[in-house]
Amino acid sequence: MEYGSETLAALIKQFSRMPGIGAKTAERLALHLLRAGAEDVERLGSLILSLKEKVRFCRNCAAITEEEICAICKDPSRSRETICVVEQPQDLLVLEKTGSYRGLYHVLHGVLSPMDGIGPGDINLARLEERVRNDKAKEVIIATNPSVEGDTTALYIARALESTGCTVTRLARGLPVGGSLEYTDDLTLSRAIERREKI
Amino acid sequence: MEYGSETLAALIKQFSRMPGIGAKTAERLALHLLRAGAEDVERLGSLILSLKEKVRFCRNCAAITEEEICAICKDPSRSRETICVVEQPQDLLVLEKTGSYRGLYHVLHGVLSPMDGIGPGDINLARLEERVRNDKAKEVIIATNPSVEGDTTALYIARALESTGCTVTRLARGLPVGGSLEYTDDLTLSRAIERREKI
Repeated sequence: MEYGSETLAALIKQFSRMPGIGAKTAERLALHLLRAGAEDVERLGSLILSLKEKVRFCRNCAAITEEEICAICKDPSRSRETICVVEQPQDLLVLEKTGSYRGLYHVLHGVLSPMDGIGPGDINLARLEERVRNDKAKEVIIATNPSVEGDTTALYIARALESTGCTVTRLARGLPVGGSLEYTDDLTLSRAIERREKI
Repeated sequence: MEYGSETLAALIKQFSRMPGIGAKTAERLALHLLRAGAEDVERLGSLILSLKEKVRFCRNCAAITEEEICAICKDPSRSRETICVVEQPQDLLVLEKTGSYRGLYHVLHGVLSPMDGIGPGDINLARLEERVRNDKAKEVIIATNPSVEGDTTALYIARALESTGCTVTRLARGLPVGGSLEYTDDLTLSRAIERREKI
């Protein structure tokens, strides 16, 4: 009964299990709720309780939705010929924010990582090949993160889709727009030199 | 429907209303819950919902409790002659962790701040004078923060309790134990010189 209330202590413990929330932050959040308006607190609690029940993953592309098929897959104005493969649902969101992609998506919900024992069966990969074959997609754009695991996954997908005859591309690497040479890391800079583009 | 789910979007918005939680962190927390075990998520939601209902403030000292009177006020082994005044419930917790105080507490749930329009009537002050008179306390230790507001509040309390004949003290100021002169701020250092102690 360190906090004078077991409910409060349990809530602090539960908050501190969330990513990036340490013991102090968890304490601050719980004490904030104690002082916050009853309506706000009830809203937060109810939303958390209904989250798992309401939110599902699209049967087609595994993006976040509350229906069986997500809004993007249903949208008739979007091209069915291109599928953009992302690691996580939030990657889809950032790509959508750019407004420069009008095809479909495929969310892997993870990335190949032999070091962590995550193989092709552990992420949403089998369904991708099925989609490419069934929907006769012309291009698969791999938008995994520019990390070792992201690159491994991209290579794996490219090989797995070889027999489908579909073009496999991945996002360009190079200098970030608005960045400066001085503060660009060595690896990015040497890649940018290798993949230099004709003006 | 930016997130593909209104429930998710509403949860992210609700998280981002908490102190120190920005839009990105709120998104990360909500997506974490989406992937987390159902049991954990349900536990968090239920705890939040029961928080307001279970947790109350002690009728005597306003500390956090689930009963009418908190464990500290009820503890017969604690001295009733000293009352330590703190700004917030969490201040009580840090003092308790030191284990060097065995009296009672009084939680103000705020601090005098004329700039923000917080006067004596807005914090738990009237009850303090009542307690000092009724319980015949011999000493009131003011443990407000060493800030302008904390000092103002300390001074106000000292004056308000003058007529009760009770001794009013406040926590010592000086160099933090384990700190170094080099990294101590000017104000702390000049206070430490003024209030130098005989060896």
